[in-house]
Amino acid sequence: MRYAVLGTGIVGRTIAAKLASLGHEVVIGTRDPDATLARSAPDAMGNPPFSTWHADHSAVQLRTFAEAAAFGETVVNTTAGAAALDALNAAGSANLAGKVLIDIANPLDFSQGMPPSLNPVNNDSLGEQIQRAFPDAHVVKTLNTMSCFVMVDPGRVAGPHNVFVSGEDVGAKKQVTELLVSFGWPESGVVDLGGIETARGTEMLLPVWLRLMGALGHTDFNFHIQGAR
Amino acid sequence: MRYAVLGTGIVGRTIAAKLASLGHEVVIGTRDPDATLARSAPDAMGNPPFSTWHADHSAVQLRTFAEAAAFGETVVNTTAGAAALDALNAAGSANLAGKVLIDIANPLDFSQGMPPSLNPVNNDSLGEQIQRAFPDAHVVKTLNTMSCFVMVDPGRVAGPHNVFVSGEDVGAKKQVTELLVSFGWPESGVVDLGGIETARGTEMLLPVWLRLMGALGHTDFNFHIQGAR
Repeated sequence: MRYAVLGTGIVGRTIAAKLASLGHEVVIGTRDPDATLARSAPDAMGNPPFSTWHADHSAVQLRTFAEAAAFGETVVNTTAGAAALDALNAAGSANLAGKVLIDIANPLDFSQGMPPSLNPVNNDSLGEQIQRAFPDAHVVKTLNTMSCFVMVDPGRVAGPHNVFVSGEDVGAKKQVTELLVSFGWPESGVVDLGGIETARGTEMLLPVWLRLMGALGHTDFNFHIQGAR
Repeated sequence: MRYAVLGTGIVGRTIAAKLASLGHEVVIGTRDPDATLARSAPDAMGNPPFSTWHADHSAVQLRTFAEAAAFGETVVNTTAGAAALDALNAAGSANLAGKVLIDIANPLDFSQGMPPSLNPVNNDSLGEQIQRAFPDAHVVKTLNTMSCFVMVDPGRVAGPHNVFVSGEDVGAKKQVTELLVSFGWPESGVVDLGGIETARGTEMLLPVWLRLMGALGHTDFNFHIQGAR
């Protein structure tokens, strides 16, 4: 399948590399491809610049948000949550209409310093904001409750653990579940929470995830709902 | 040990009964004991009135918040979150000073209908509000991430699963961990997240807990942090 991955950060790179390794055609979307490729310094998290990663993944092309979204049969949002709606607007509603739009982003707000807070929170979610803004896309919120390395390699965490899906379209959730299985998730590990409103629940897992990372000192952990089956 | 349990709802009753079954002396605190005992109708959740429960647990006495807190060497807050600070103010800071104060409540706000939202959320938590209001108490947030039946009988959920503790006082968290072990929790299942600020994380688990309850159709489930150990 042809995939557009919006976002050039560590999550987007990790998802894009996994999709390419599975034989999919992948285009990464960014605001300004030339500017993204011109950066030579590590990002704020210490990750190497995109160009370094791209040299090792030359089959993955870098295009504008709109070009990438036009190319993709399925679109994956891996942008920073606060930039997600702008990025998707740049991608263009016509390029998203009728497509499965996988939303991995969390609406982290760093404006008050660390740890980040969530915005929106409580009575709304980024997943719902995106679905409202692009009513013709089939938004599925998933994978936003773990490290990106666990997303594409669930075996990094020993024992059973879960990935959640939230979305209005049953067919879209089925397609996403098949993708998750291709990433290595057992189908029994995929928990369908219901409609896109349930993204409020998974986005609000981030605060305890961040504190668990602090308490445990690593990110190779994940939520397992014991008693779910 | 002598325990005060503040709150006469299903959580308070369940905790009080468990403590009494373990040989502790337990007094339940309420605003107006006579009014609580006079109620003869089920509550909004369909639970029988307190008097029905009390007839089967007559060793547990019902007193005012202040009398109960004065009696208890350890105090357990099981009030509805929105009423917690009022209840603790009625209990009185002098009756809480120097004591371990176990906070099980979640700050659920039902004013906008179902599902409830959290207030405070994001940059504050009920656990922190209580610790700030009663700086001489040793607040430990715990058990707020599961059904009350699982709190006192973790074996209801097959397989390993976790209970979190958040608090500033290491000795208080040690005492609470011993209590949890007496409830049936393996010590390896107790995850110390750090200071009381980490209660933000566990309180924000409630939205996904509620949606899991909806998706699964029961409450005998719990969070297990896979990869924590």
